[in-house]
Amino acid sequence: MTQLHATAPSGTRRAAVIGLGSMGLGMAQSLLRGGFAVAGFDVSQAATERLAQSGGSIAGSPAEAATDAEAVVAAVVNAAQTESVLFGAQGSAAAMPEGAVFISSATMAPEMARSLAARLEATGRHYLDAPMSGGAARAADGTLTMLASGSPDAFERARPALDAMTGTLYELGAEAGHGAAFKMVNQLLAGVHIAAACEAVAFAARQGLDLARVYEVITKSAGNSWMFENRIPHVLEGDYTPKSAVEIFTKDLGIVVDMARAAQFPVPIAGAALQMYLMTAAAGMGRDDDASVARLYAMIAGLSLPSAD
Amino acid sequence: MTQLHATAPSGTRRAAVIGLGSMGLGMAQSLLRGGFAVAGFDVSQAATERLAQSGGSIAGSPAEAATDAEAVVAAVVNAAQTESVLFGAQGSAAAMPEGAVFISSATMAPEMARSLAARLEATGRHYLDAPMSGGAARAADGTLTMLASGSPDAFERARPALDAMTGTLYELGAEAGHGAAFKMVNQLLAGVHIAAACEAVAFAARQGLDLARVYEVITKSAGNSWMFENRIPHVLEGDYTPKSAVEIFTKDLGIVVDMARAAQFPVPIAGAALQMYLMTAAAGMGRDDDASVARLYAMIAGLSLPSAD
Repeated sequence: MTQLHATAPSGTRRAAVIGLGSMGLGMAQSLLRGGFAVAGFDVSQAATERLAQSGGSIAGSPAEAATDAEAVVAAVVNAAQTESVLFGAQGSAAAMPEGAVFISSATMAPEMARSLAARLEATGRHYLDAPMSGGAARAADGTLTMLASGSPDAFERARPALDAMTGTLYELGAEAGHGAAFKMVNQLLAGVHIAAACEAVAFAARQGLDLARVYEVITKSAGNSWMFENRIPHVLEGDYTPKSAVEIFTKDLGIVVDMARAAQFPVPIAGAALQMYLMTAAAGMGRDDDASVARLYAMIAGLSLPSAD
Repeated sequence: MTQLHATAPSGTRRAAVIGLGSMGLGMAQSLLRGGFAVAGFDVSQAATERLAQSGGSIAGSPAEAATDAEAVVAAVVNAAQTESVLFGAQGSAAAMPEGAVFISSATMAPEMARSLAARLEATGRHYLDAPMSGGAARAADGTLTMLASGSPDAFERARPALDAMTGTLYELGAEAGHGAAFKMVNQLLAGVHIAAACEAVAFAARQGLDLARVYEVITKSAGNSWMFENRIPHVLEGDYTPKSAVEIFTKDLGIVVDMARAAQFPVPIAGAALQMYLMTAAAGMGRDDDASVARLYAMIAGLSLPSAD
């Protein structure tokens, strides 16, 4: 194997992680465990301190983190933040070694992924469109699922970092945008299924059914979904501490609906689900767990759902 | 164990099955395998001949089938047919031995189940509200799931027949209506998930994604549902031979929406899904497989989906 351009003189592989929330921190820890030296950046000092405790180094900007890195992982929430990480003031693009790869994990429209990739590739760096599936636990375990697309060079350069971070890597095409497109199909379904799970459980509560029994029956029946099984326990426990917030789906179903409208394609079910997340956010629960959609139905209809107390 | 009133002199248990479509025939075959003598009735002669080939006897009416039966299973499609089987001309209610049990498997509103149960119980027979989950293969195997509620006497009398027909029996309450209510919660989810699966796959096709790859990725991701996994292969194969027809969901989501309106409870996502089934039926596909909702999106948007040819 040839010596990589971005490998430090000591022979240690270097990676950067920009965005050290629960996902980014876990990814950084997985990279450290995989033998990388990791430089991290986050606007929150508490976040960077957690990385330092795990053995990473703290950078003062995305540019500083990216210097000498063979792979720069962006673990931020959307296209605007990703663009800022790359091309904003003290962005990482110009600081990355030539031939290094930028691994973009945010959920965004395929068109945005293609645009960011084209801009970065024009400077001689590679771009991997790699939105992910799986929560903070799997980020920390190094067993994320990534839905990735990009050039063969981008995959080749990203491979050691991907090996450290993922359990399952889908290689979905030779250019940016395919990973994003698959992710949006997943988000359409995930968003509808959570909202439908909340609607169904509130409908059951309206009929006076025992909700724990509903959970037991539905998870063994044809009405089950991954999201019903994962999210309804939050309702049963009355615990809306955000594992994934309502605002994630006002964003992601918003992207779905925008993409569909731009393509003159109707998505009435995703559209109905989006309205439920917007109502839930409008009622003040935007930063709470996405199972809060059940609380919205309960609030509207004067129902009691289990409470954590 | 005491001799049951309805047991024939020979000691053979006797059951009746009214409605010998793919579900009823399989249930009758499971009862035969369980040691019951089975008398069947269906308006279709082809259906009754299949029962005769399996070793059952053919009755000329629901009343004739029910005579001497300890358990009468109604495997018809809705509340109106169930009412007719019980109380129509030559209905089974008056012909059933006193103390025998009527096992109602159709999906219907809880209020209808309660009403039918009250009318039958007033005549000294028992009523088990027992809608089911699982297709024709599980009916034939004797491994259906039943969501049952009814009096202790109804359960006791039905037990041998339930043992022969079910793999999983949920006992959901001491009166008719609870089984129906749980089934409607399941149907809300099942109906939304099929329509969402079709919307998502058509949205993926609109973006030019490889649909087989979409299936592979989604079934391993958080966007998965039991219905996505079960129905999307029909789309990938272009095979819309009805395993379960669009009309089942115009009916069942219709019941959900009616129940919700009567209870002044909003179900916007189920409502959106119902409209998609109605559009699919209006476009001439009501008797085709419910995955035909994907063909409706394709028809509207001028997309090509896989064809069986």
